[in-house]
Amino acid sequence: MVPAGSDPSAAVCQGADVTAPDLDVVTRIDELRALLDRVRASGRRVGFVPTMGYLHEGHLSLMRAARAADEVVAVSIFVNPLQFAPQEDLASYPRDLERDLALCTSVGVEVVFAPPVEEMYPQPIATTVSVAGVSERMEGAARPTHFAGVATVVAKLFGIVGPCRAYFGEKDYQQLAVVRRMAADLSLPVEVVGCPIVREPDGLAMSSRNVYLDPEERAVAPVLHRALLEGASVVQAGERDGEVVAARMAEVITAEPLCRLDYAEVVDAATLQPCRRLVGEVRLLVAARLGTPRLLDNLGVRVPEG
Amino acid sequence: MVPAGSDPSAAVCQGADVTAPDLDVVTRIDELRALLDRVRASGRRVGFVPTMGYLHEGHLSLMRAARAADEVVAVSIFVNPLQFAPQEDLASYPRDLERDLALCTSVGVEVVFAPPVEEMYPQPIATTVSVAGVSERMEGAARPTHFAGVATVVAKLFGIVGPCRAYFGEKDYQQLAVVRRMAADLSLPVEVVGCPIVREPDGLAMSSRNVYLDPEERAVAPVLHRALLEGASVVQAGERDGEVVAARMAEVITAEPLCRLDYAEVVDAATLQPCRRLVGEVRLLVAARLGTPRLLDNLGVRVPEG
Repeated sequence: MVPAGSDPSAAVCQGADVTAPDLDVVTRIDELRALLDRVRASGRRVGFVPTMGYLHEGHLSLMRAARAADEVVAVSIFVNPLQFAPQEDLASYPRDLERDLALCTSVGVEVVFAPPVEEMYPQPIATTVSVAGVSERMEGAARPTHFAGVATVVAKLFGIVGPCRAYFGEKDYQQLAVVRRMAADLSLPVEVVGCPIVREPDGLAMSSRNVYLDPEERAVAPVLHRALLEGASVVQAGERDGEVVAARMAEVITAEPLCRLDYAEVVDAATLQPCRRLVGEVRLLVAARLGTPRLLDNLGVRVPEG
Repeated sequence: MVPAGSDPSAAVCQGADVTAPDLDVVTRIDELRALLDRVRASGRRVGFVPTMGYLHEGHLSLMRAARAADEVVAVSIFVNPLQFAPQEDLASYPRDLERDLALCTSVGVEVVFAPPVEEMYPQPIATTVSVAGVSERMEGAARPTHFAGVATVVAKLFGIVGPCRAYFGEKDYQQLAVVRRMAADLSLPVEVVGCPIVREPDGLAMSSRNVYLDPEERAVAPVLHRALLEGASVVQAGERDGEVVAARMAEVITAEPLCRLDYAEVVDAATLQPCRRLVGEVRLLVAARLGTPRLLDNLGVRVPEG
């Protein structure tokens, strides 16, 4: 742990000021488990925010939500190799632990779990957690092994962290659905909480991968959000055919020469299955490549009745 | 719960006699979780014995091991549909809950978790936990979906039961290896304990499926154990070629006309990979069909040095 001698479980037991505690940086699984067991044994609840680091306002919003609801907030920072395919950007994924720790401290996080890869995977992992259905379309089609990698590491992190509320951004909406389903199917003692997307002033959804955008691409990037707003306004105007709405979103994106559309979809908000006839809560999702990075965005729409 | 008002967590907190407590029969996931959380909050450890019921001395030996090591013993009785293939014996699998409860009481079990299928799987389960390597040969080859069904239900049971020691018989040796690997890979807060096979006086390994044997088949069934003893004696006599030892075991079984050999294997005790040159701890495993049922048996051998 860094700094030595700091113990958030002891601090909260003693009723110390929890809004600006020392930050404990834990790298070992058994140490984190013991620390959080002490927290729970003292009657305090754990809020958990799993991340891959390179934190931005989206992550901080999750930490603030945990801070507001739970007595002790733990953040994991782990770039999980399992969820990257061989040709993807594992090696170049942006990392800045010192900056991340300062950001965690700034929002009152008590515990950061930043394990080395050898601690999480001391031997090649043989176990895979996979979720059928919600994993299969959209990102699952574009990145066939991605969600199994996500579900496996999240199951493991939940096993380490223990009973908690766990906060995930709606930015990765399909990931949120995969994690929710996994936690429910396996009866894990974790309440999964989804939190709203945080956007730049021009509408671009915050993402660690936005740093890959060059200035010209960055200027174009809000087109994903504009496509979603156009889709939502078409629904509000009375359109009830999901394919028509999806086609309208696709038009907005393909009109931008720098963008290569991957998908534009209108799905049931819970099952993520495409809905032809729109009713209830639906989700609009788009993905497009802008230069190197793939950008994702999505928006919830409550379909007006009648 | 049955009987109403009984609460093993309260009983153990108050230092009541834990060798013959009332038996709590819990059918709901949230109820079991709350009960065992209270047990742990009082500083008592939980021993957990997952079973499919129709209990025999093998199961009772697991419960006695838990009874000796842990303050509160919980047994699950659940015939898990996920681990049966469509053509297998799910519908006819032997069940006798009243007798099982009496047996649990007789060895001092405090809690039985006997959920209906709808409680464990309120919707078709979309999540699968699979373990590569140790799952793939022998039983995994004979029953391709079996170990994923086992790993999934055990992961779920571990999620429900929470931190515990969990006891499994070595009778299903490959299952034990799958569960050990899954718990390690996912960092589950569970210590997996393997316990020795319990045998009938004539050497037949106890199994709920032995009730399927007719008298003639039952008389022949100890041939599996005899084959293992023959294999072990060949190793003790100096044979170091795993294939030669396996062939000798196969001969013993195929010499019995009622038996159809499925496999005879000599594998590394930890990895379950076949070992040609025998060294260290090895495991001899056999499987054969006798009439309808498939029978399994295995034996550990420490290869003499030099």
